[in-house]
Amino acid sequence: MAEAPARGLADVVAASTALSDIDGRAGRLSYRGYDINELAGHSSFEEIAFLLQRGAAPDRQQLDDYRGELANGRGVGSLASSAMDGVAQRQHPMEALRSLVSLGSADDPDAGSNQPAANLRKAARLTAQQPVLVAAYHAARSGQKLPEADPDLGIAANFLLQLSGTKPTERAAEIFDICLVLHADHTMNASTFAARVCAATLADMHSAVVAALGTLSGPLHGGANEQVMRGLEAIRDSGGDPVEAVGSQVAQRLASGEKIMGFGHRVYKTEDPRATHLRRMSAELAAEHGDDTYYRMSRRMEEVVLTEKGLYPNVDFFAATVYYYLGIPTDLFTPVFSVSRMAGWTAHVIEQHADNRLIRPDSEYIGESGLTWVPLEAR
Amino acid sequence: MAEAPARGLADVVAASTALSDIDGRAGRLSYRGYDINELAGHSSFEEIAFLLQRGAAPDRQQLDDYRGELANGRGVGSLASSAMDGVAQRQHPMEALRSLVSLGSADDPDAGSNQPAANLRKAARLTAQQPVLVAAYHAARSGQKLPEADPDLGIAANFLLQLSGTKPTERAAEIFDICLVLHADHTMNASTFAARVCAATLADMHSAVVAALGTLSGPLHGGANEQVMRGLEAIRDSGGDPVEAVGSQVAQRLASGEKIMGFGHRVYKTEDPRATHLRRMSAELAAEHGDDTYYRMSRRMEEVVLTEKGLYPNVDFFAATVYYYLGIPTDLFTPVFSVSRMAGWTAHVIEQHADNRLIRPDSEYIGESGLTWVPLEAR
Repeated sequence: MAEAPARGLADVVAASTALSDIDGRAGRLSYRGYDINELAGHSSFEEIAFLLQRGAAPDRQQLDDYRGELANGRGVGSLASSAMDGVAQRQHPMEALRSLVSLGSADDPDAGSNQPAANLRKAARLTAQQPVLVAAYHAARSGQKLPEADPDLGIAANFLLQLSGTKPTERAAEIFDICLVLHADHTMNASTFAARVCAATLADMHSAVVAALGTLSGPLHGGANEQVMRGLEAIRDSGGDPVEAVGSQVAQRLASGEKIMGFGHRVYKTEDPRATHLRRMSAELAAEHGDDTYYRMSRRMEEVVLTEKGLYPNVDFFAATVYYYLGIPTDLFTPVFSVSRMAGWTAHVIEQHADNRLIRPDSEYIGESGLTWVPLEAR
Repeated sequence: MAEAPARGLADVVAASTALSDIDGRAGRLSYRGYDINELAGHSSFEEIAFLLQRGAAPDRQQLDDYRGELANGRGVGSLASSAMDGVAQRQHPMEALRSLVSLGSADDPDAGSNQPAANLRKAARLTAQQPVLVAAYHAARSGQKLPEADPDLGIAANFLLQLSGTKPTERAAEIFDICLVLHADHTMNASTFAARVCAATLADMHSAVVAALGTLSGPLHGGANEQVMRGLEAIRDSGGDPVEAVGSQVAQRLASGEKIMGFGHRVYKTEDPRATHLRRMSAELAAEHGDDTYYRMSRRMEEVVLTEKGLYPNVDFFAATVYYYLGIPTDLFTPVFSVSRMAGWTAHVIEQHADNRLIRPDSEYIGESGLTWVPLEAR
């Protein structure tokens, strides 16, 4: 093949989807035709997971039934449970989730089936299970028992409860619920695309979401929110006025050609609409927290990067401080991303299986040709 | 995005590679410039793994050193070992490998690093470990102890030894070694592409090969060799003369529009060169075995599909009977494919990390637009 490749498949239309749409110039994101700005604060994560996986917004009865399915799907499964302590002690959070979800197929009665009804059931179970896996992992590595779930709480509030052992305030739960809504789907991002490449061989949903989890772990994708927080922490720890320090250090790094985590996006040419919501929530939580240093540092960083490079914050940038103020440990930021994106991944697998074609691109060969193999003895 | 998608990315050049090249019209496959026909029977799998991962054919010293690395990398690791019995009893072979390789990162000292030297070491370890994982899984589910490795044997012979407990004949080991050489890499096949999509977020090698394993499991990809054998078994079990039965049943299925597993390939327009070698080895093993029924059935099937549809057998078709005659259990055919392809996957991760760009395509939105979100109470 001699053709020049579309490096990174930038601007190549790889698949059709009815799940989400981005208008990168206008800075708009929609799920199944609903603008994210209409959804944030006006819908629960459960409604959005249903919308993505099952095609339309649920009515009251459908939502109650779906919540029942989610409540029944919370179990970690016996194979993953039996591995939990070893995994929690020996694997980093995203490695651990990759292992635990892979083990989890053993306890899913529909694991081997790609039938539409089986896929719907698995999508609900995987969505219900993911926050419990994160909390159970955190409990196990801390030598604690996983706090009991509260059946009256939704996924967002219950996750914060099981992670910390304390029932969150209503507003904290609302804000975290909005975070889950904002992260639920995002067209052909790398982890979703990996899930579709996998599912397109007619591999099953567990294989596809395990592929997605591994892909999300990369610092150029889901790993970025953690990197943002670590960057802020490092600057604050370096002494001096942290807001001034952020200004000078970021300017210096930009001048030397370094990339700054949390800024710019291949698809958005203006502000990522998710960042707008996350900035507002970060400000609110900072004010409530009392120490708003990380928020002020973030605002300064935003200003410098926009002035120097014309780049806008992406979804990862203000997610970092929102999660920080919500009390989520920094190394669980990417796992929290996966709690939300599980809704989108599973919906994409359902969509891929419903109208499948193997995803198998070509490649451009750039190596040597026509070499003669010399036997080992003569080398 | 309104553009029409390249469904399945057919004929879209997604990446550059110096690892392998296919000339689909001429039916040629080469690894780093060496035609597969020069390699099959004239190189060992270890030489090919080195060639792919490290860029050139090894000399005697390099090969000895690499074999030493492989021998040291054979261990399953303590976390995977501790989960082995549960996994072997509760997960199908490809699910099990996905779990075990994911758990395995805990015992790899380079797991978190994408540095070139770390990637080379991990590539060798993962290549050494994969056949042992398959054999250890098979031993555990059979309630047997894994047979001791023989340090004097190469990967092919040692795998057959550890799988069955009996040292293979020299010719059986040679034939299996050729199988491993033939399956080691194949440009942007779906599992390799999934590995590259994952690695392109700068996720680590374990995440990428776990994504690849899940992708390989699909029946439109690695799962096809098992489906081929199950198809032959079902026809033979249906009674009557099996060769006649295969002729009439395949003709009937083709007439009703069914696809026949093991035939046709998106890239090859003529015979897959790997199929030529595998057919020859299947014939040889069948003659030696005494009962050549499955080989004769395969030949008849090949004849019918070529006459009726003009389709040639692909790599999976004769691999099925070769593995059968080598005594490999049918449900381990796809795992055996992974033993070989691990060499290619890891080499692609090395190549991707060495010159990385995030793989993030666009999508065409085909859903509704501009919907107004109605609150739950009003739905």
